[in-house]
Amino acid sequence: MFEIELLKSRILTEGQVLPGNILKVDSFLNHQIDVKLLYEMGKEFAIRFKGAGVTKILTVESSGIAVAALCGLVMEVPVVFAKKHQTSNLDSNVYSASVESFTHGRTYNIRVSKKYIGCSDRVLIVDDFLANGRALLGLAQIVEEAGAELVGAAIAIEKGFQGGGDMIRRMGIRVESLVIIDRMDDDGNIVFRE
Amino acid sequence: MFEIELLKSRILTEGQVLPGNILKVDSFLNHQIDVKLLYEMGKEFAIRFKGAGVTKILTVESSGIAVAALCGLVMEVPVVFAKKHQTSNLDSNVYSASVESFTHGRTYNIRVSKKYIGCSDRVLIVDDFLANGRALLGLAQIVEEAGAELVGAAIAIEKGFQGGGDMIRRMGIRVESLVIIDRMDDDGNIVFRE
Repeated sequence: MFEIELLKSRILTEGQVLPGNILKVDSFLNHQIDVKLLYEMGKEFAIRFKGAGVTKILTVESSGIAVAALCGLVMEVPVVFAKKHQTSNLDSNVYSASVESFTHGRTYNIRVSKKYIGCSDRVLIVDDFLANGRALLGLAQIVEEAGAELVGAAIAIEKGFQGGGDMIRRMGIRVESLVIIDRMDDDGNIVFRE
Repeated sequence: MFEIELLKSRILTEGQVLPGNILKVDSFLNHQIDVKLLYEMGKEFAIRFKGAGVTKILTVESSGIAVAALCGLVMEVPVVFAKKHQTSNLDSNVYSASVESFTHGRTYNIRVSKKYIGCSDRVLIVDDFLANGRALLGLAQIVEEAGAELVGAAIAIEKGFQGGGDMIRRMGIRVESLVIIDRMDDDGNIVFRE
């Protein structure tokens, strides 16, 4: 079983609270990646969504990719990452959604080629963070546009105090977060939801 | 042992040659990710760099992350991905290099926090593609700036006809590419190096 307490302790010892409700955990999740830890997260997600018949994992570049890839390895399903940066070699035939970024203070489009999600897919969204929920809603919109079934969302760290997770749960979407932070102060104090 | 022939056959059947020497393999590598295939690639890289004492894997966002993460899982070392997009929460204390992108036709800066590569590290660079070699040179420059040892580069697909790989080998850097493409025509014909 995944040791939630270990993840909490990594957040407490290595995380930095930055102005604007930003939690920086780039020693193991967002810049440097503790691959073994993410693999254990993947195993925990696989347990929680066992029997849900997931056929595809959907995430968004860049920091969601590693968590999603390791989860996909455990669950033995392909991973698709939505593109959020301009690229000259993406199909024009895409599903897209507009997402307001909390961290970066701007709006961008996320896009997924229509080739890689279809109406017979049962999609699990995987991401590193859930804050105001905009990215997750954008991904959910793409799943709906594709006519696929959304089985839920698997999140490493939910910033519960920003409300996105609870809003999305109220919409009837299953959200499984490994840890939920209920309060975070500029002096570095972090309180987890029990 | 990794089946190089399998990778070649995936490239031949699923790859699309686009104008401007672009090879699109987004059904298994750049957009949708065949996680199992990338894990097998990771095992092959681990064999080739066995005994090299790798302590860290370095890649660049976004499409290098999945290959690097799965390689890191096999080799049991942390992965660091250089940031190429603006982000409000990266340290100001970074190593950086300027990289001219072949695919996207512009120059960008890649940055790595000084916290995550140090002079005692033995770094393996992992990437999905090697074309003109600019990204790899930028990453090598960061490794050098950090005073770390570069043990080599592990590449999924090298576009040999663009010359980057051979240029970098001539500099004395070990480059291990799973497949090398020596010719690629607009009609979709792809010739591999023997």
